[in-house]
Amino acid sequence: MPRYKLTLEYDGTPYAGWQTQAHLPTVQAALEGALAAFYAQPVATFCAGRTDAGVHALGQVVHVDAPEAREPYAIAKGLNALLLPQPIAVLKAEEVPADFDARLSARRRHYRYRILNRPARPALDAMRVWNIHRPLDISAMEEAAQHLIGRHDFTSFRSSECQSASPVKTLDTLTITRAGEEVILTASAKSFLHHQVRIMVGTMALVGMGKWPATRVAEALAARDRKAGGLTAPACGLYFVQVEY
Amino acid sequence: MPRYKLTLEYDGTPYAGWQTQAHLPTVQAALEGALAAFYAQPVATFCAGRTDAGVHALGQVVHVDAPEAREPYAIAKGLNALLLPQPIAVLKAEEVPADFDARLSARRRHYRYRILNRPARPALDAMRVWNIHRPLDISAMEEAAQHLIGRHDFTSFRSSECQSASPVKTLDTLTITRAGEEVILTASAKSFLHHQVRIMVGTMALVGMGKWPATRVAEALAARDRKAGGLTAPACGLYFVQVEY
Repeated sequence: MPRYKLTLEYDGTPYAGWQTQAHLPTVQAALEGALAAFYAQPVATFCAGRTDAGVHALGQVVHVDAPEAREPYAIAKGLNALLLPQPIAVLKAEEVPADFDARLSARRRHYRYRILNRPARPALDAMRVWNIHRPLDISAMEEAAQHLIGRHDFTSFRSSECQSASPVKTLDTLTITRAGEEVILTASAKSFLHHQVRIMVGTMALVGMGKWPATRVAEALAARDRKAGGLTAPACGLYFVQVEY
Repeated sequence: MPRYKLTLEYDGTPYAGWQTQAHLPTVQAALEGALAAFYAQPVATFCAGRTDAGVHALGQVVHVDAPEAREPYAIAKGLNALLLPQPIAVLKAEEVPADFDARLSARRRHYRYRILNRPARPALDAMRVWNIHRPLDISAMEEAAQHLIGRHDFTSFRSSECQSASPVKTLDTLTITRAGEEVILTASAKSFLHHQVRIMVGTMALVGMGKWPATRVAEALAARDRKAGGLTAPACGLYFVQVEY
């Protein structure tokens, strides 16, 4: 059984997240539907990171054990045709060694968060950005980010439903950039806790709006209590960008 | 009757273009519907450029003569609420002198065209870009663009249905930039003929794909015949970006 690595782009808007759920449309169900049609039998998928409802992907990675060998290019092309008109595209298919695991082999994950920082709501980027009306103070947000970078107990920055055994994670980078009307945050780490990026973004947004001093982020982290952390930024601004192996 | 200038962003996908048509959804009909609800009477709109079906706008400009004076901020806010959930946003409302005319006062119009230059179809940017699979030769496209810049008879680059009295226009700038997987073209001029930007882009794409030598663009221009020009690029990649007054 050859193993393939698939790199996916998708619009998370119409999906109840990555993971298959009864009676709800999910990215996994759509992809497994296309795989079942392509191979004329069920094929299971394993992803690098289970995105939540409404979260987008520019480079989600999945591995599958295929019932037969096919040209990787033909697999990508065939799946893309079968996925239409759904907003999911296979960017690349590659044959990988049998010990490649989309989740366990990942060395680093990259996320991006887009804030549209202007008074008017988005027309073209509705469901693609978080619209914050008040001008954000980027310097204050950068100061706040410094408190989060490194190895910490991120209990205050994970969902109460997070199933990770340990709340200790190492955040490699957290950057904030203004690009026209947008404020773009990027976060990189080997792995993240559930909702960690969205809570970090929501908390930094409170700092950017002047509702929190930057130092309160350090206090929130030290409290190791989700109630001490800031708000959870909306799913629609989040993009799972890339996985390094 | 105070006159207001409205700056609009919209997703052109669900509309049969700007201009009101019987039995079809249009941006003008949507905006005039919101204005009628806001002022409790009909208010006519006049735009800087009538975009075609599927063409997007980041900065379309409209003027209206309002039946009463209101705070510009309140007008924008009120119209935005009334336009929901349609993908049209009023970015700004400003009171302008009675001789301001969205179309006639325009000194310069700016368009952008987005090509997604990769084998895989777009998932997140479906209906936002033109997907060209073959890698484009940007240098050749830049060479082709040089033939189009300046004052020319653009008969070969206008729709056969174009109603402009003269085919002579001055193209101020035409640039091509690669940004990751995208190739972005920008065009600026006082005014454009019908389909001019899309035919210029379609023709340059033929050059970028190696189907035309760059010099054939000069020949096409000299022919003054639409049949000598290249293909019309799809509407979905085109953005009406800004109008200078």
